[in-house]
Amino acid sequence: MRNVSGWAAHQRGGPLEPWNFTRRDLLADDVAVRVAYCGVCFTDISAIRHGSQFPLVPGHELTGEITAVGSAVTRFAVGDKVAVGNIIDSCGVCPPCLAGRQNWCTEFPTLTYGNTDRRDGGPTRGGYSSEYVLPQGFAYHLPPELDPAGAAPLMCAGITTYAPMKRWGVGPGKTVGIVGMGGLGHLALKLAHALGAETVQFTRTRDKAAEARSLGADDVVLSTDEQRMAAQRGRFDFILDTVGAPHSLEPYLSALAMDGTLCLVGIPDEDIRVSPLSLIQGAKTLAGAGSGGTVETQEMLDFCAEHGIVADVEIMRPDQVNEALDRLDRNDVRYRFVLDMAAQRP
Amino acid sequence: MRNVSGWAAHQRGGPLEPWNFTRRDLLADDVAVRVAYCGVCFTDISAIRHGSQFPLVPGHELTGEITAVGSAVTRFAVGDKVAVGNIIDSCGVCPPCLAGRQNWCTEFPTLTYGNTDRRDGGPTRGGYSSEYVLPQGFAYHLPPELDPAGAAPLMCAGITTYAPMKRWGVGPGKTVGIVGMGGLGHLALKLAHALGAETVQFTRTRDKAAEARSLGADDVVLSTDEQRMAAQRGRFDFILDTVGAPHSLEPYLSALAMDGTLCLVGIPDEDIRVSPLSLIQGAKTLAGAGSGGTVETQEMLDFCAEHGIVADVEIMRPDQVNEALDRLDRNDVRYRFVLDMAAQRP
Repeated sequence: MRNVSGWAAHQRGGPLEPWNFTRRDLLADDVAVRVAYCGVCFTDISAIRHGSQFPLVPGHELTGEITAVGSAVTRFAVGDKVAVGNIIDSCGVCPPCLAGRQNWCTEFPTLTYGNTDRRDGGPTRGGYSSEYVLPQGFAYHLPPELDPAGAAPLMCAGITTYAPMKRWGVGPGKTVGIVGMGGLGHLALKLAHALGAETVQFTRTRDKAAEARSLGADDVVLSTDEQRMAAQRGRFDFILDTVGAPHSLEPYLSALAMDGTLCLVGIPDEDIRVSPLSLIQGAKTLAGAGSGGTVETQEMLDFCAEHGIVADVEIMRPDQVNEALDRLDRNDVRYRFVLDMAAQRP
Repeated sequence: MRNVSGWAAHQRGGPLEPWNFTRRDLLADDVAVRVAYCGVCFTDISAIRHGSQFPLVPGHELTGEITAVGSAVTRFAVGDKVAVGNIIDSCGVCPPCLAGRQNWCTEFPTLTYGNTDRRDGGPTRGGYSSEYVLPQGFAYHLPPELDPAGAAPLMCAGITTYAPMKRWGVGPGKTVGIVGMGGLGHLALKLAHALGAETVQFTRTRDKAAEARSLGADDVVLSTDEQRMAAQRGRFDFILDTVGAPHSLEPYLSALAMDGTLCLVGIPDEDIRVSPLSLIQGAKTLAGAGSGGTVETQEMLDFCAEHGIVADVEIMRPDQVNEALDRLDRNDVRYRFVLDMAAQRP
């Protein structure tokens, strides 16, 4: 077994504390990744609060370097820079898996932490740790152009916003709205702009307008301004809603043009409620999306390398992780915390 | 002015009674249609109950013959067989209108009844009448292969189900579910089958299984059978929900495959409620649709002519209209009432 140091919650809602544990010896198809940076995602807070598997080691946005490879590994060599996201295995034989869209594996993908590993039957433990071991098929080549700290959040926040924008044809000639300007939203803004769409940021905070423009917004709409919102009627081909807190979708459905799509990637705690007519009038669509499969994730990394896109991050030491989680919970971050896992190594 | 005889509700909720009224003299772009048959749609009941314009002459699924044309009419001649649906005019200059999708006119299309006519400023009065007058652009050539009684319901129920199936790619290699087997549902079943999809009818009534198969269903699923419903998980590329009464959408979202679409064309009285995760898991889509524009409506008629599709209808005399409305309200019809408007003429 491989000795690993990390940060774990020992009970539901508990603080993260240093914790030493082991990972399996490499199977033939495995690679070992020395973790350099790990993003702090809202899912981590949710898992600490509501998870069932403790000790829980969170973290599913990681970048690092290959330090060992199993005997059958062909895609990586020791020293390669890599990235790992929120799934690390899947059944491999269902239609979504065969299409490289393992995030929708009909047998459910293996999540990077808080889940049961398909190969060794043990609990999966995340990237708030010195090393990760996983099958080579779920590690990604990290393009050398990408800063490994800023690239870490691409592995969840990036792919979660990139995949639906590609699916719904975001590109030149399209008008795209982004709702929310946090970890997901700020990356969606950069990505939509790089994809060539007319990009509009919706925000509740007047102060964010200038920053939204600096990140790539062609226009900013204050969502608390009812008159301005009413004037958006019929403007958008696609709106990506990254807000996790419950909120009314009607103003955004109204802002869609004929055939327009409102796609949710934030996960509110309560049911979605919409009037049937707000969908039927104009043949509109309410869609969901989350994460991505192996094909799109590598495509997203390459796209980001080509366009110089990484997350805007605030780097914290691992011993500041509880502070990072607290501040994230209050939305006090522009725009993603990343733990510098090397800062804990001797 | 042109003298017309028809059937009108004189106050909200009132019975329909014979009523003589006038339509405008033909404008240069107008055609006059002698109404042969007019379908009885649930919208008619809704308008009688909740409308604001009385006397109200319902009816927006009509077939007939051109009896007169305005001086600038080029598309029709006296004697042509035609059909008219639920919109009879639009602004003509907005993007949906320019795309031939006038049903989504941003200035709102003129409805066939209970609306205000754009050209003469008067109330629009529907097809429960001896004659209709409208701009030539909103009349359709009725293919000679189509029985004019059975074709009448194509003009609302037919196009409302055809348009979303075309948009969402229903065809060979796709598995399609139809929820509800009334006026809309039974046409959706015939259309999906003719489009080449594996077609599955959902119904709450075990008795309808044989009839569903005779209409084109490859399979029938009893929606009250929870075990059978659970077994549908991930089966469908597309589900068309034609049920107007409020009902849970979760079983149908669950029955969708990755990237699948559940499209609503029935209009429930209450808000739609769905769990965000039932959309997000599998990147699913909830869509709306209703009616069609001039391009798709003619295409639908030609498709129906090619495939021998008309509605299954029960023909009533106009003086039976109140009985027809009562029975429709109780779902006691297989599958659409059509009024034989010639039966009232001397």
